[in-house]
Amino acid sequence: MSPIQFVSLGPGEAELITLKGLKALQNADCIFCPETPVRDGHSLSRAADIMLRLDIPANRIRRFSLPMSKQRTDALNAYDQVYAAALSLHHAGKKVAIVAEGDAGFYSSVHYIYEKLQAAGIPVEQIAGIPAFIAAGARGGLHIASREERLTVIPGITTAEEIERLIQSQNTVVIMKLSQCTDEVHRCIRLHPEYDYRYFENVGTPQEKYISDGQQLETLRFPYFSLLIIRHNGF
Amino acid sequence: MSPIQFVSLGPGEAELITLKGLKALQNADCIFCPETPVRDGHSLSRAADIMLRLDIPANRIRRFSLPMSKQRTDALNAYDQVYAAALSLHHAGKKVAIVAEGDAGFYSSVHYIYEKLQAAGIPVEQIAGIPAFIAAGARGGLHIASREERLTVIPGITTAEEIERLIQSQNTVVIMKLSQCTDEVHRCIRLHPEYDYRYFENVGTPQEKYISDGQQLETLRFPYFSLLIIRHNGF
Repeated sequence: MSPIQFVSLGPGEAELITLKGLKALQNADCIFCPETPVRDGHSLSRAADIMLRLDIPANRIRRFSLPMSKQRTDALNAYDQVYAAALSLHHAGKKVAIVAEGDAGFYSSVHYIYEKLQAAGIPVEQIAGIPAFIAAGARGGLHIASREERLTVIPGITTAEEIERLIQSQNTVVIMKLSQCTDEVHRCIRLHPEYDYRYFENVGTPQEKYISDGQQLETLRFPYFSLLIIRHNGF
Repeated sequence: MSPIQFVSLGPGEAELITLKGLKALQNADCIFCPETPVRDGHSLSRAADIMLRLDIPANRIRRFSLPMSKQRTDALNAYDQVYAAALSLHHAGKKVAIVAEGDAGFYSSVHYIYEKLQAAGIPVEQIAGIPAFIAAGARGGLHIASREERLTVIPGITTAEEIERLIQSQNTVVIMKLSQCTDEVHRCIRLHPEYDYRYFENVGTPQEKYISDGQQLETLRFPYFSLLIIRHNGF
């Protein structure tokens, strides 16, 4: 029986999916795909948008609602339902895929379902994808980290002093979920205007935003889904 | 005139190239590709192997020798020659690509050529690829980093105490070029057998090695091209 495949879609630009991921989607009978409720009863799904641009038939895509609430239990409940539905299709001999934006093993809450299936002895497979920070680096033409430099990825909570300490010890710093540390990032830019700041939203999509001017960033309000790459200019 | 494209090939498994990268290779007139001299006048090129498996015509692949010596100047000389040859083809109206394993902007020495072309005002484009640690995580079915966890990537030089400090402050640690810190990694495993150690070589290729048993790793000699993902078991 085919394993249940966790297919990484990459960061948003459809053609940044891997060939392996695309083939898995083309071969799947049923593809579980998260959507997020927005205002007026509508829903958004960047994952479904990517698949439709790759000509995956809409009738094979099975959307499930993933609430964006702070309560993790709401998301876990949604995932438990996907788990049960995927398992039942798998037992019926169907080829099942579950998709994630970016890479399904890198800050991807859907990995909860992978672990639950694995614990139940169900064959699972994870197909790698491009993380957002890698796509951002390519968009900016950056050498994100080179030679002896290190990379530290921080999902949201940090201070200006910590960023300073990391940069001074030859780390490239990638900060995600910037809305959680806006003031500290602004303070870091004021303290260290000499660092190299590259800010990204929605890389590779029509909504893309790319700002490399620290002064402009100093007053910008960051949304949750945004990303900053900070490097020492003198490396 | 088309930009000179820096195409990331991914970590070694041919189908982990992106669709965008594959199309760029298929459209290129000339693809510069590194090979490494080995014994008896022979050369190896994992990059060329990947492209041949993707049915890129061999006569469009232009191999250049990239010495593995410790002297960085030898590699830079090789890159300077590629720069000149690529520039001349570009001026003749040819579509030129230059490839890199993994991601061309993440610990990729070929980025030197990108920067030199950019400084000369030549249009360049970087196409993202899967870094080896992301492919390794997928191979091992790992959630490399999740929620508030951080990621630190260390290219070779570290100590057991530093790894300990990072793990205890909720970092996942990825160490590359393990041959440079074999003794410290062995010492860390003896000090902290309770951490989760996942060791990888040549992920996705016939030479793949994947070991998740710390005891087995404690005596293993690591080659240069190898990778370890260390996590706290209790996260």
